[in-house]
Amino acid sequence: MSIVTLLRPRIAQDLPERLARSAAVTVTGHQLRTEDVTGWLAERARSHRFTVRRVPLDRLDHWSFAPGTGDLVHRSGRFFAVRGLSARLGEGPFGNWQQPVIHQPEVGILGILAREFDGVLHFLMQAKMEPGNPNLVQLSPTVQATRSNYQRVHAGSHVTYLEHFTDAPPHLVLADSLQSEHGAWFYRKANRNMLVEAAGTEVPAAPDHCWLTLGQLGELLRLDNVVNMDARTVLGCLPLPATGPGALHSDIGLLSWLTAERARHDADVRLMPLAEVEGWTRDTDGIRRPDGRYFRVTGVAVEAGNREVTGWSQPLIEPCGTGVAAFLFRRLGGVPHLLVHARAEAGFLNRVELAPTVQCAPRDWETVRAADRPPFLQAVLRAVREGGAHYSAVHSEEGGRFLDACVRYLFVMADEDTAPLDAPRGYTWATVGQLNSLAAHGHYLNVQARTLLACVNSGAAHL
Amino acid sequence: MSIVTLLRPRIAQDLPERLARSAAVTVTGHQLRTEDVTGWLAERARSHRFTVRRVPLDRLDHWSFAPGTGDLVHRSGRFFAVRGLSARLGEGPFGNWQQPVIHQPEVGILGILAREFDGVLHFLMQAKMEPGNPNLVQLSPTVQATRSNYQRVHAGSHVTYLEHFTDAPPHLVLADSLQSEHGAWFYRKANRNMLVEAAGTEVPAAPDHCWLTLGQLGELLRLDNVVNMDARTVLGCLPLPATGPGALHSDIGLLSWLTAERARHDADVRLMPLAEVEGWTRDTDGIRRPDGRYFRVTGVAVEAGNREVTGWSQPLIEPCGTGVAAFLFRRLGGVPHLLVHARAEAGFLNRVELAPTVQCAPRDWETVRAADRPPFLQAVLRAVREGGAHYSAVHSEEGGRFLDACVRYLFVMADEDTAPLDAPRGYTWATVGQLNSLAAHGHYLNVQARTLLACVNSGAAHL
Repeated sequence: MSIVTLLRPRIAQDLPERLARSAAVTVTGHQLRTEDVTGWLAERARSHRFTVRRVPLDRLDHWSFAPGTGDLVHRSGRFFAVRGLSARLGEGPFGNWQQPVIHQPEVGILGILAREFDGVLHFLMQAKMEPGNPNLVQLSPTVQATRSNYQRVHAGSHVTYLEHFTDAPPHLVLADSLQSEHGAWFYRKANRNMLVEAAGTEVPAAPDHCWLTLGQLGELLRLDNVVNMDARTVLGCLPLPATGPGALHSDIGLLSWLTAERARHDADVRLMPLAEVEGWTRDTDGIRRPDGRYFRVTGVAVEAGNREVTGWSQPLIEPCGTGVAAFLFRRLGGVPHLLVHARAEAGFLNRVELAPTVQCAPRDWETVRAADRPPFLQAVLRAVREGGAHYSAVHSEEGGRFLDACVRYLFVMADEDTAPLDAPRGYTWATVGQLNSLAAHGHYLNVQARTLLACVNSGAAHL
Repeated sequence: MSIVTLLRPRIAQDLPERLARSAAVTVTGHQLRTEDVTGWLAERARSHRFTVRRVPLDRLDHWSFAPGTGDLVHRSGRFFAVRGLSARLGEGPFGNWQQPVIHQPEVGILGILAREFDGVLHFLMQAKMEPGNPNLVQLSPTVQATRSNYQRVHAGSHVTYLEHFTDAPPHLVLADSLQSEHGAWFYRKANRNMLVEAAGTEVPAAPDHCWLTLGQLGELLRLDNVVNMDARTVLGCLPLPATGPGALHSDIGLLSWLTAERARHDADVRLMPLAEVEGWTRDTDGIRRPDGRYFRVTGVAVEAGNREVTGWSQPLIEPCGTGVAAFLFRRLGGVPHLLVHARAEAGFLNRVELAPTVQCAPRDWETVRAADRPPFLQAVLRAVREGGAHYSAVHSEEGGRFLDACVRYLFVMADEDTAPLDAPRGYTWATVGQLNSLAAHGHYLNVQARTLLACVNSGAAHL
């Protein structure tokens, strides 16, 4: 083989077209009709007879409060730990605080396997139980594994399909980037978000797995609590066309705005002993704030049959209210533009990532004077109340770490009165194409923004 | 104005062409002939009568060792501090260590102003004295300012041209990204690297400033110690064409390889009290290792006339040997490919960045058995000895922090014997176009890789 034939195109030109073809198939896929998927999920749940019950933190098997620090740790020293976090972000009236935080320095894999059936790309999704999901079983990526998982620290069973991701031939990798998790609850956690094609290989679906088109996933994303967070975040970094029509701001204008936002945030964020965190108390209900705000750390015990181990207990973070995550959008010259927020979250590696226009738990802000509440919150709550959103569905956050952490995700159309083109400081307008270009790089879009992008990419939301 | 006319192209199509035109002008620019630039630098140095002398660390004005930690800090609490660093990178025989490190959490601006004269882009460069430069005065960006500098902590004079960068209209920003500094010596330091056009405005060159074309800068990059590190790093992230001919690995293949490298490095890096750092001693020569390896922390006192203040003293890091930073390259199908290294440096925010094939101080490795020395070092040292490099020049690292930190930068052509296409773990092949695409995003290429990319972009190195 000569050297010349070794060179390949830098970008696979047919991929956006193949993804668009998959997004167009909404009613039935190779394996299941879309309307039968929730029934299949319920059937899988029944067949495993999962039970999850609350347990006080000091009665979690293999977990204990470390002497000295008071950190909540697993006896293996692996998985994750709940530690303290001291944050100074210097923004607004709430720029200094301490809180419990999840510390898990290893990088996990969230991988979706793709394969063509009759010329249409399908994605291999898993019916996966996670103790924090309100309905326990949701659609997750083909593989969702921490390094502790797949290195089998708890001596459980092999992670099915894992080798498709750890040993993927480069030309079959369609997307692969490090993406952040919730910066408000995790300290610098990143996962590898992968989409890998199983070209030319027969890959039978295991009993808990199912091949679905992108369009089917789009239909399912219109329902509450069917597609889990890890699946949504992978679908939020698909290799969609980076180019496209014009935008209000050029690509470099958008990057420059974000660079300035990252540069102006002086952050001092560090881990601290959980026992020394101020403003939080520990009692039989867990670790919580006396004023009932934000979240508490609680414990669960799980009995199940198909997990890597047959039963375990663990801490979970339980938010104290339902969240909202909403993009205001406008069509400018026919091109939908989203109002993105340069959001500083304490746990982000790069201080600031692009977030939805509004992202908060409204209940936390009820007692705060109006001028200090998040900008644009009022417009979003009005859309929730009056049903005027273009897209609205509730999705729960990662059920392996968060208990009943439900967020209403929305797209709300805006006009010059609610959302002026001359956006306030910390906000700017970006097209879907621009966000897709950035998503391919990692650490640009936060997990809530990626969820909403997944809704557009899969056809769940039409802007 | 209608909404439609508000949309602009996402990418300015004429910019690569304008930069190429500027790179082609090598002999004389609007203001100076290239051959007269070093004379002009010498003249500027003479007119300011700078003196720099060594001072023991405990006799630096306004600097002291903090009680308790032993950290070397400025009395303002600003600028930078020398603290301790504990690093576990888990790679090879030297995966655990402690060292002094520079801690400077604020983001500085490195900005070059660009303007067309007779249809050719020129860059406004500054003759700037930095105490650590072997020849004191080198060409630096138009503006090179820490936030402490430009917020005038030391009550010095105004930073000339600063407003072109802090108040740049978005459509005049040509490049703007956060880029790392030396990860071996800085803890998570990033600077904003900006290229801004002064369109339609007369911008007179101040006495210490001079307009030069990209081609002139390329000629000057062939000389030792003329273009300073901050100028090189900005020239290493020019908005050059992201597309181009094929490559050995697709763009996503390259990104996926880097994602895997970042995911597999388990890093535990944290600041610690300088007084507790093991393996280092403090005496009248500064803070150093008894075995004489790596670097020492030393102090200087500066007298000068045109700096923001008229005299000051400060600590500097003084490496114990001259470094090498070299890319091996091969032409594949006519397209130059560089052998890039996924290099973990303790101070990097994202653990791993793309680095030259070889980057080390050879002296540090003389006493180490051959099998543990950096891969490809031997091929690079042979090229140094035998003069076979395609590009070879010595450049000093940031003279505001490093004393006589000289590195020989090289491009060395390789073949299948010295550098196989099937690169060893931790290495891969990438084209110049691919590296330019990544450079626009920040935290992808380390400062040494950006220096070498600047040499290609400016025409100093022809591959």
